[in-house]
Amino acid sequence: MLRVFQSPPRLRTALRHLSRARPPAADPQPWFLTNPQSGALSRQLHVGADGSRSSPAAAAAAAPQRLPFSRVTVEDLAFFRRTLPGRTITDPDLVQSSNEDWLKSVRGSSEVLLRPQTTQEVSQILSYCNSRNLAVNPQGGNTGLVGGSVPVHDEIILSTSLMNNILSFDNISGILTCQAGCVLENLTLYLEEREHIMPLDLGAKGSCQVGGNVATNAGGLRLLRYGSLHGTVLGLEVVLADGQVLDCLSTLRKDNTGYDLKQLFIGSEGTLGVITAVSILCPRKPKSVNVVFLGCKTFDQLLKTFQLCKGMLGEILSAFEFLDSECMRLLNTHLKLPNPISDCPFYIVIETSGSDSNHDSQKLHNFLEEAMTSLLVTDGTVATEVSKVKALWSMRERVTEALTHDGFTYKYDVSLPVERIYQLVTDMRRHLGKRARSVVGYGHVGDGNLHLNITSAAKDPALLASIEPFVYEWTARFHGSISAEHGLGLKKRNYIYYSKSRPAVALMGNIKTLLDPKGILNPYKTLPDDLRRT
Amino acid sequence: MLRVFQSPPRLRTALRHLSRARPPAADPQPWFLTNPQSGALSRQLHVGADGSRSSPAAAAAAAPQRLPFSRVTVEDLAFFRRTLPGRTITDPDLVQSSNEDWLKSVRGSSEVLLRPQTTQEVSQILSYCNSRNLAVNPQGGNTGLVGGSVPVHDEIILSTSLMNNILSFDNISGILTCQAGCVLENLTLYLEEREHIMPLDLGAKGSCQVGGNVATNAGGLRLLRYGSLHGTVLGLEVVLADGQVLDCLSTLRKDNTGYDLKQLFIGSEGTLGVITAVSILCPRKPKSVNVVFLGCKTFDQLLKTFQLCKGMLGEILSAFEFLDSECMRLLNTHLKLPNPISDCPFYIVIETSGSDSNHDSQKLHNFLEEAMTSLLVTDGTVATEVSKVKALWSMRERVTEALTHDGFTYKYDVSLPVERIYQLVTDMRRHLGKRARSVVGYGHVGDGNLHLNITSAAKDPALLASIEPFVYEWTARFHGSISAEHGLGLKKRNYIYYSKSRPAVALMGNIKTLLDPKGILNPYKTLPDDLRRT
Repeated sequence: MLRVFQSPPRLRTALRHLSRARPPAADPQPWFLTNPQSGALSRQLHVGADGSRSSPAAAAAAAPQRLPFSRVTVEDLAFFRRTLPGRTITDPDLVQSSNEDWLKSVRGSSEVLLRPQTTQEVSQILSYCNSRNLAVNPQGGNTGLVGGSVPVHDEIILSTSLMNNILSFDNISGILTCQAGCVLENLTLYLEEREHIMPLDLGAKGSCQVGGNVATNAGGLRLLRYGSLHGTVLGLEVVLADGQVLDCLSTLRKDNTGYDLKQLFIGSEGTLGVITAVSILCPRKPKSVNVVFLGCKTFDQLLKTFQLCKGMLGEILSAFEFLDSECMRLLNTHLKLPNPISDCPFYIVIETSGSDSNHDSQKLHNFLEEAMTSLLVTDGTVATEVSKVKALWSMRERVTEALTHDGFTYKYDVSLPVERIYQLVTDMRRHLGKRARSVVGYGHVGDGNLHLNITSAAKDPALLASIEPFVYEWTARFHGSISAEHGLGLKKRNYIYYSKSRPAVALMGNIKTLLDPKGILNPYKTLPDDLRRT
Repeated sequence: MLRVFQSPPRLRTALRHLSRARPPAADPQPWFLTNPQSGALSRQLHVGADGSRSSPAAAAAAAPQRLPFSRVTVEDLAFFRRTLPGRTITDPDLVQSSNEDWLKSVRGSSEVLLRPQTTQEVSQILSYCNSRNLAVNPQGGNTGLVGGSVPVHDEIILSTSLMNNILSFDNISGILTCQAGCVLENLTLYLEEREHIMPLDLGAKGSCQVGGNVATNAGGLRLLRYGSLHGTVLGLEVVLADGQVLDCLSTLRKDNTGYDLKQLFIGSEGTLGVITAVSILCPRKPKSVNVVFLGCKTFDQLLKTFQLCKGMLGEILSAFEFLDSECMRLLNTHLKLPNPISDCPFYIVIETSGSDSNHDSQKLHNFLEEAMTSLLVTDGTVATEVSKVKALWSMRERVTEALTHDGFTYKYDVSLPVERIYQLVTDMRRHLGKRARSVVGYGHVGDGNLHLNITSAAKDPALLASIEPFVYEWTARFHGSISAEHGLGLKKRNYIYYSKSRPAVALMGNIKTLLDPKGILNPYKTLPDDLRRT
């Protein structure tokens, strides 16, 4: 059962039963598979018959023209078959699933899927493609959200799926080395048997591959605690566009010999090289995990609660997530999920993980008592069983699902200085007035990462035109990022200037040219179209 | 007083008195000021009259020839004086201290020291110098150990010392933004008043500047806990060689819009651009800090203790350092520091920091009890007062000072897979036999970072020739780094191939050419001479 507290005495009773149960595994069914916007975006991007094309938003998202790469010939196929016998796939039915993203929002027309097993094979393929001027689309688990993982036109799909060997694990240092195609969940299971965890966790972990995680600089649920991949990835092996193997597969925590080249490839979305192996620092598996659900009257109180939490939970804090009352309304209405506490304008989900369950419970108790007595938090509950812990987490995790039942959804994923994140929701609500059905905000307070979602009865180009310049300009005004964790890929490539200066984007273009002079690697992605034209 | 324990009952007594005192500030007197090797190295590098020059080690370290940069003219000085009135220094006495490094091991012959206050001024200077083909040596606190921070010939010294303003601090997110010339200790004091700390701490903190810390990817004492600057630095403002200002001064924890350009400049030692401002994620100040000193019979037991420690101290572990019995002998002999516990082959210094002193003490108690009863640790002590905590830390921190009294010292700073680090000491001892006076090992177990030191009665080119190919080859054989945290600078630039592949070094050269086509920024540093010749 859930234990609800609304006053210090009830709180104390609840805390006596504080659960040490593990939190649920991340939702195995990613939300984006059920997002109705996806199909519409697909049409906008690839069919181009949408009336909204004339809007700046549609123009920026429009699919780029095919660049003058060579087309695959019979001789090319013969080379691929000699190099990858039995792993050169041309059966259209088999290639099809690799042509389309999980969202079913973007579809390419590649006719060749290559499945190398070794770095050497990747090197041979790229060397050949570069000499032949054949475009290549590197692909991991194909779970990206911005159209970065599938071909736009007829790029050859280079899948890392068969490169799934764990190369080494050092139990003393916690350093794992593996091929890029290892599925995140498999790595997690492997490490759990060895009392470690991966430093990142994602909803898509059952399919996504570590090479893709690194290529997209995936954020996920553990970033607040363990930091970004720029800190936890210790080494990479990368095959460059010309087939050259760049061995930066260090397994050292410290190495100051020259420029840290591997950093370039983290978050470059396969446009600078193909990651073939990864070494990564893995934390010890926590012995104790707790989850609580709290209510606040104002966002300012929520931020003060976050500060208190950082101070009192300190080193055991592993998640600080929020949702607003509009999210709760959608959870109640569309999914029939009851509010586990009394109605509040804002809700918080806090997770702790540590090495001593008694200490963690006591820290949580002290924090909750202080938060309640200082009136920062008006209500709260602590789950005592695994299933109830899961139920609390689902209030945060199923918001996206609830949104899909509310109408056509416009989704944004921005990061901002944390004190600003809810102001964007309020301003957007005021800006759109009655034109929107719902304007809701939720996300990762600890990371300053807001998921802003707007619904309407049906797709509405006029509404989109009201949202899109506004949301990006608002984000840019406060020096936010228009893509906090999803990357730019195909869909957001032309919005880059909202978050990056022209000199910075120009330098990115120069680095692309340096590493991939013919531009064969994941063309049409990450960098804006104007850069390719210059 | 120090409380010594040698058996579980004594341990329990000691633990009842477990101190919650703060650890000492890092030694304000950096060891390298008293290192007698420095002068010798200086002669080898700059005078070049040493007989050992014919050895590979000496050849690699030899000072490079001046490249054909322009020489500063009267017109140039007039421009600098107009741009930086009163901050263009040409008085030889005043320029002198900026020509020489802290070690007094490397000396340049610059005649101009520029002290800009703003990014715009840095931009004007670099734009001018680039057009005039004048070489520039960016300089922070000038505390580096590899000759990277001073001119080699007559490069103009561009000091960031007057760029010392804190630009913003967000108490909710813990994100600090400041100019590059802020001294680390000043930032620490500023943050401590706001209940935060810098994520790095160094012996040189009284002089070193955060811009230099970032430019050299400084490691230091907190890396085990808070990770490297590649993870904690959120944004940089950099002026490129041509004067262009690259604004990547994000204050966001998440931003996946294009390539993460700032990463290129972290650890590039001022060769790719001049860092003018930094934003960095600062942890909360811990409420409780504890220090213990332990003894082990074997290095294998020391590693097992480290594993136990990671599991039982978990999230509160903030340092795990070691020294061997040879270090203890030198401390006893030369500094008259008594061993706080009984004689052991290996000693460990563990520091914890956390948000609840009772919890931390209890975790430490449980860990120590387990370590003692399982016979991993044979003896140990816990300090109860600040001065005694300081005394325990000094057993680790004063090893370098003790070495200076033991004779001429050959110093190496390598990182290796943690299970290998002491094997290098043993192998070196066997390899050198009686030719060395002492061969000692100490360092950061948690980071796999070994400080290997060898002493002899006097400088001995034959001994050096026995050490230097051996130590680098040994490190390379186990994929270690020949410079764990000090960088390459001038002194180690030609050893880069021991830790990096030729394709990687060639790519570094291409990146240098892309960002600084004329090579005016910190020439002769970081990249090997053969790259400049090609």
